[in-house]
Amino acid sequence: MGIVLGPNQYGKAENRLVRIYRDGPRHEIRDLNVSTSLRGDFADAHLAGDQSAVLPTDTQRNTVFAFAKEHGVGPIEDYGLTLARHFVADVEPVHGARVEIEEYAWDRIDDHDHAFVRRGQEIRTVAVTLDGDDGGRAYVVSGLKDLTVLKSTGSEFRGFLHDRYTTLAETTDRILATSLEVRWLHIGEPEAWDVSYASVRGLLLDRFAQVHSKALQQTLWEMGKAVLEAHAGIAEIRLTAPNKHHFAVDLAPFELDNPNEVFFAADRPYGVISASVVREGAQEAGLAWSAGA
Amino acid sequence: MGIVLGPNQYGKAENRLVRIYRDGPRHEIRDLNVSTSLRGDFADAHLAGDQSAVLPTDTQRNTVFAFAKEHGVGPIEDYGLTLARHFVADVEPVHGARVEIEEYAWDRIDDHDHAFVRRGQEIRTVAVTLDGDDGGRAYVVSGLKDLTVLKSTGSEFRGFLHDRYTTLAETTDRILATSLEVRWLHIGEPEAWDVSYASVRGLLLDRFAQVHSKALQQTLWEMGKAVLEAHAGIAEIRLTAPNKHHFAVDLAPFELDNPNEVFFAADRPYGVISASVVREGAQEAGLAWSAGA
Amino acid sequence: MGIVLGPNQYGKAENRLVRIYRDGPRHEIRDLNVSTSLRGDFADAHLAGDQSAVLPTDTQRNTVFAFAKEHGVGPIEDYGLTLARHFVADVEPVHGARVEIEEYAWDRIDDHDHAFVRRGQEIRTVAVTLDGDDGGRAYVVSGLKDLTVLKSTGSEFRGFLHDRYTTLAETTDRILATSLEVRWLHIGEPEAWDVSYASVRGLLLDRFAQVHSKALQQTLWEMGKAVLEAHAGIAEIRLTAPNKHHFAVDLAPFELDNPNEVFFAADRPYGVISASVVREGAQEAGLAWSAGA
Amino acid sequence: MGIVLGPNQYGKAENRLVRIYRDGPRHEIRDLNVSTSLRGDFADAHLAGDQSAVLPTDTQRNTVFAFAKEHGVGPIEDYGLTLARHFVADVEPVHGARVEIEEYAWDRIDDHDHAFVRRGQEIRTVAVTLDGDDGGRAYVVSGLKDLTVLKSTGSEFRGFLHDRYTTLAETTDRILATSLEVRWLHIGEPEAWDVSYASVRGLLLDRFAQVHSKALQQTLWEMGKAVLEAHAGIAEIRLTAPNKHHFAVDLAPFELDNPNEVFFAADRPYGVISASVVREGAQEAGLAWSAGA
Repeated sequence: MGIVLGPNQYGKAENRLVRIYRDGPRHEIRDLNVSTSLRGDFADAHLAGDQSAVLPTDTQRNTVFAFAKEHGVGPIEDYGLTLARHFVADVEPVHGARVEIEEYAWDRIDDHDHAFVRRGQEIRTVAVTLDGDDGGRAYVVSGLKDLTVLKSTGSEFRGFLHDRYTTLAETTDRILATSLEVRWLHIGEPEAWDVSYASVRGLLLDRFAQVHSKALQQTLWEMGKAVLEAHAGIAEIRLTAPNKHHFAVDLAPFELDNPNEVFFAADRPYGVISASVVREGAQEAGLAWSAGA
Repeated sequence: MGIVLGPNQYGKAENRLVRIYRDGPRHEIRDLNVSTSLRGDFADAHLAGDQSAVLPTDTQRNTVFAFAKEHGVGPIEDYGLTLARHFVADVEPVHGARVEIEEYAWDRIDDHDHAFVRRGQEIRTVAVTLDGDDGGRAYVVSGLKDLTVLKSTGSEFRGFLHDRYTTLAETTDRILATSLEVRWLHIGEPEAWDVSYASVRGLLLDRFAQVHSKALQQTLWEMGKAVLEAHAGIAEIRLTAPNKHHFAVDLAPFELDNPNEVFFAADRPYGVISASVVREGAQEAGLAWSAGA
Repeated sequence: MGIVLGPNQYGKAENRLVRIYRDGPRHEIRDLNVSTSLRGDFADAHLAGDQSAVLPTDTQRNTVFAFAKEHGVGPIEDYGLTLARHFVADVEPVHGARVEIEEYAWDRIDDHDHAFVRRGQEIRTVAVTLDGDDGGRAYVVSGLKDLTVLKSTGSEFRGFLHDRYTTLAETTDRILATSLEVRWLHIGEPEAWDVSYASVRGLLLDRFAQVHSKALQQTLWEMGKAVLEAHAGIAEIRLTAPNKHHFAVDLAPFELDNPNEVFFAADRPYGVISASVVREGAQEAGLAWSAGA
Repeated sequence: MGIVLGPNQYGKAENRLVRIYRDGPRHEIRDLNVSTSLRGDFADAHLAGDQSAVLPTDTQRNTVFAFAKEHGVGPIEDYGLTLARHFVADVEPVHGARVEIEEYAWDRIDDHDHAFVRRGQEIRTVAVTLDGDDGGRAYVVSGLKDLTVLKSTGSEFRGFLHDRYTTLAETTDRILATSLEVRWLHIGEPEAWDVSYASVRGLLLDRFAQVHSKALQQTLWEMGKAVLEAHAGIAEIRLTAPNKHHFAVDLAPFELDNPNEVFFAADRPYGVISASVVREGAQEAGLAWSAGA
């Protein structure tokens, strides 16, 4: 049996691009971290060290910055699509491209024209995958991560399976805390990416707050279901949530009670719950979800 | 010349304490990271391995959590003072204590009673230092860190000194971005710690936004001066600010101009500017600013 | 079209387990970070909040620690297989398990019996995937990460593709530096996991050192090929390598030449090259490579 | 009472410099992270935005790289002294300079001439402080950090002070683990910086391994004392050591005993022990230990 080259790709990761719009006194800012990756006819680069089909990662970086001027930076979904389509259409050996972008949000300081303060911890994300061998369809997976939320009550965990190694006590009232990482695959393009994003984010927060949680699994399902019900243009949503344990401290040695008032927030280990919610009949997703090998 | 034990201290770092107030349906949360450190008659522990004067760091941890119930957790300055005074007053070998606290802020999700989302990136801090050998005075240094701000114009840097190694071009228009770390020493206690904190934070942001900056040094001075002018109870303020460089990308090779619209945000190296602004005649600060050896 | 639950899993991540063997005066240490994840009949937990089929993640943690005593901790591949087989065989609703382990290496201090110092930066890894619905076959993917290597010459990059955005100069002599992340899928079980690991690691380092590199792609291919040629029991190897750029500093403004002696090591952006080398005819790998949704 | 400018300084942090010596086929590498900071007549930059006395941090960066060619990079103490003396002697408004350097170690791969692999986790450090107003004396503080060590026995903790909040059990056998951060102040210059460093590092490891520890305080004292006894040219040594807790897991619920074989390595909180060992009669250390305001 022979030994052969398998799937491969290459690109430039973490291009930190800040785009200022300053056509009038009131500036706008888009603050991005852009990673590009290409697939195509690159076997010779591996097998023979022949770079004639390889567009340097340095060129990919240049393209990221040049396109920010040539085409502007609007919603990251649009910007990612523009980059991916360029690489596949304009660079002959390239058959597929993946563009992953993180966006960091800023608020104005007291409504100032050009002074800003970073907003929140969460990061908006997109992964655009364009596979020229797959009829040229572009997959757009929008998302967010590092959205840290906590409920101080309204969460229970009981009735679970026991085996020889089970010592956990049941509870009808605990802190539920997590740092959400959520991604959703679009069927087509919504009317406005930014509006769509704000709506999904709002639904996720609303369900987290409103649903009385019998388990983090249930909360994730309710969050995902709400998003798919409200957005016919979303085919699937994937949610991953660490269960950031908050343990009520035993204060009995100090003759103090602790009716869920004093907690120790633990680092490791932590639970991890992952679930997807899918629209039946949605078409296959190709490489949309994964950066591949 | 002999070899002797010099300054020493020990404690428990990073006790992650979450305190929920749940007396009615509308919960309150205080989310802290508490570090304690003690000084005193601990020579025998070093020289002879004799622990009889050593209160375990495990006990310091227990105290942090027990006090959260016994005394509650209000403003972190109050909570830190309560802990520091306890260690010095109630544990005989302890002569001095330092309590450092970080606080992470939360917002309610849609004004929900018990569901929260982490607010911002910045961290509120306090360092309380109580030196029993110094007449028992407690020094309180309030602060903040990781407050990330950016101006897209209104910043210049020119007229600087040149030597053989200087290649930097002068500029009348650049991005000014930094992540502020600021600490201020109180003379006494303000009427309300939380109100005082909010006022200082507001002044810092206001000066950053409003001052046309000829250099980061000037901006820091204006920020510090505004705080001391408005708060007679603050003796000194110390500001440290990395100059997070944003370089305008040269797009000329692509026949594109770039009038300060497309920037590369660099990681390292970065400038670091530190300055203090002091009220003349304020008394000595002892160990207030530094954790010591 | 209905909205349904898709793939899901849950587990306990980052159980920090240290196992000391102390049967004689000469102790042995294995220092692990163990993450477990289960798949199975968990739909009711999501849809109805019914936990009756859910073995708590707390129980998974207990199992990790208890097994370290009951079954001992030898090579991480063995330990991972033991855990995965237990979950699938002994917990009725569980159909599949994935156990991911990191191992941190220690050296003895001067050949001391029980005093150790952490060795190197690299981390040995394993991912064991057992899918009960797939005939119960266990997939074992061994690996390493954070193995940081550098060549100060013997690396070139030229003859590459140019487009409108290409400005990079060709070079016949540059620093090549990377932090290797490599994983390889076993067909069966080698005679000794630790011996197999040491051999693969040695081959990777040898090829990195000995191959004159025309591109990082070529180096990765040569590394992977050498491993598959020497290990008939390895079906596929996947390599990911950031190109950690070292830029020769332009010292001409200071009337100094710089024949590749003084470099600036950049953080971001960085290149990322990924490649797999596969043995033709090897059977399908199921979920071996990916943690899934 | 007036409001005035207090202590201030500015510089360029984290210049990532890699210096290759390639005069023959066998290359040498020094891999550094260099931070510079200047004090002097900079009041006008703060008060009036006047930069005429300010040497840009960009120039400081250029100097770091240019000096690596002009003066070479030997031991980091020498390189730091050369930089600090230049800034104070050659730049008129500069009265004081502080140069902090981290060095990352590399091993050859199989004794290869130009291929290297990163060695260990620990980092060698130096802080050179030159105060022109203090007679021009240069203080050199050598050091190391992230040297992670562990003893699987030979450590106890008992006979400690109890108060109302003490629940810790005494132990005659526990894991002692820490990540050492140690710095030492030289009186003059040793014959060879690299030899001196290797000797101190060896003594620290030897004492950690050989001393039966009754407390981490005692271990630190013995480490520091050994260094001062062996090195007449060292005035003071400061050691900081987190107590990285390893808790023996209670396996009784699973009918397993655990005679210190299975441990949970905790992240937070952790103990922190700091101590200095000083040579009596050594002269004052000025700003040697601290970066200042």
